[in-house]
Amino acid sequence: MTYCVGMVLDKGLVLMSDTRTNSGVDNISVFRKMMSWSVPGERIVTVMTAGNLATTQAVISQLEERTKAPGDRRNSVFEAPTMFQIATEIGRLLHETIAERQAVNGAAGKGRFTASMIVAGQMKGMEPRLFLIYPEGNFIEASWDTPFFQIGETKYGRPILIRAYDRSMSFEDAVKLLLVSFDSTLKANLSVGLPLDLMVIERDAFVATHERRITHEDTYYQAVSLGWGEALKNAFTELPDYSFYAGDKNG
Amino acid sequence: MTYCVGMVLDKGLVLMSDTRTNSGVDNISVFRKMMSWSVPGERIVTVMTAGNLATTQAVISQLEERTKAPGDRRNSVFEAPTMFQIATEIGRLLHETIAERQAVNGAAGKGRFTASMIVAGQMKGMEPRLFLIYPEGNFIEASWDTPFFQIGETKYGRPILIRAYDRSMSFEDAVKLLLVSFDSTLKANLSVGLPLDLMVIERDAFVATHERRITHEDTYYQAVSLGWGEALKNAFTELPDYSFYAGDKNG
Repeated sequence: MTYCVGMVLDKGLVLMSDTRTNSGVDNISVFRKMMSWSVPGERIVTVMTAGNLATTQAVISQLEERTKAPGDRRNSVFEAPTMFQIATEIGRLLHETIAERQAVNGAAGKGRFTASMIVAGQMKGMEPRLFLIYPEGNFIEASWDTPFFQIGETKYGRPILIRAYDRSMSFEDAVKLLLVSFDSTLKANLSVGLPLDLMVIERDAFVATHERRITHEDTYYQAVSLGWGEALKNAFTELPDYSFYAGDKNG
Repeated sequence: MTYCVGMVLDKGLVLMSDTRTNSGVDNISVFRKMMSWSVPGERIVTVMTAGNLATTQAVISQLEERTKAPGDRRNSVFEAPTMFQIATEIGRLLHETIAERQAVNGAAGKGRFTASMIVAGQMKGMEPRLFLIYPEGNFIEASWDTPFFQIGETKYGRPILIRAYDRSMSFEDAVKLLLVSFDSTLKANLSVGLPLDLMVIERDAFVATHERRITHEDTYYQAVSLGWGEALKNAFTELPDYSFYAGDKNG
């Protein structure tokens, strides 16, 4: 499994991904699921991936034209005129890669090579954009009503995102919120694992404003993980108490 | 979908289930998913069901021997000497019902008639017990390490259960905890819906100590649902703030 979240804020984009891949619980590895390309002052594009690792790596390799000699490569991320066009191209590559592997493997390949991606970025003169690319190759864009996307194991970490996300929040608060959401997911699903990759892309910066890898030794992550249990218990205590008597009256 | 939770406390058993069934999002109904039988002073058995409604209703009907005239019926829930035996019998009926429907429908029936159940109760002279019955007909029992079971849409409501459950908590706190867990699930999955059924079974009472249906008009449910958003935001604020500078130092 995997867990990745991309969110749009007034101030820019915040992205986080885990790094665990597994083929059974007895075969786990660490792989980076966040890839980024930037032309400082002009454009930045970041992709996060969930699903079959061979599929997602193949898509990224094709995007970078790694079948060609380094001098002959044309990465469409650097050439496409809009984020929309990059999403279209990644969608096309994703769908083709899955379809090809499925065709080669016939019935045995059904559903095995599927993957989805989050594409985020900004080009000069345009707004920051966030897309969710489906295995079918089509995609949706984040909007005012749905300003963040999750891929992979989305459920455990979703309630807190729904409750605490606010478009006008600071980058610092967004990172805190993502760490809470990831911590809930890590605690419930073994196939989502540390370290985490974090990227903050400030509006009109066209570079990663802040980028780091969060390991289990990270003191801030530890503080959030330990503190959240305590904070939740306090929140729980704050709520009015149930009364069997009043309950019967209401019921 | 469905969401049901059964938990063991020092003081007894607490059970909650939703009532929404759906065949597509355009065809939803209200059905009770919690059934209970009791011989006051001697035994109480409660079953909660998730999955194909025709399957779960068939199992309950067979348990009550509804194919026979009322006078000829022998409900094994009233006759089995132990909770373990009731779990065994329900597992057998569940597996048989699914297998039969699958056989009749061949490949088209594969996976369509599946269901799972939570069985809770106590018999005189024995401990309160809680079982999770799988579609395969086998089952597991709650233990000191895993003292609650969820069936149906289990993920959204799980993090708060993991964090706030405490075996020694009061029935009132357990109801509050379940309402928070159900509220998170209701907010995220349309196929889980109000009203909710609640049952509290005090140890050695052998009747439902407290039983009610919680509708959207219930003032306590409304207070929890509205208050939890606010309480979560406060909990979030309590956590230490992320700092880009300290973050870079740690990273």
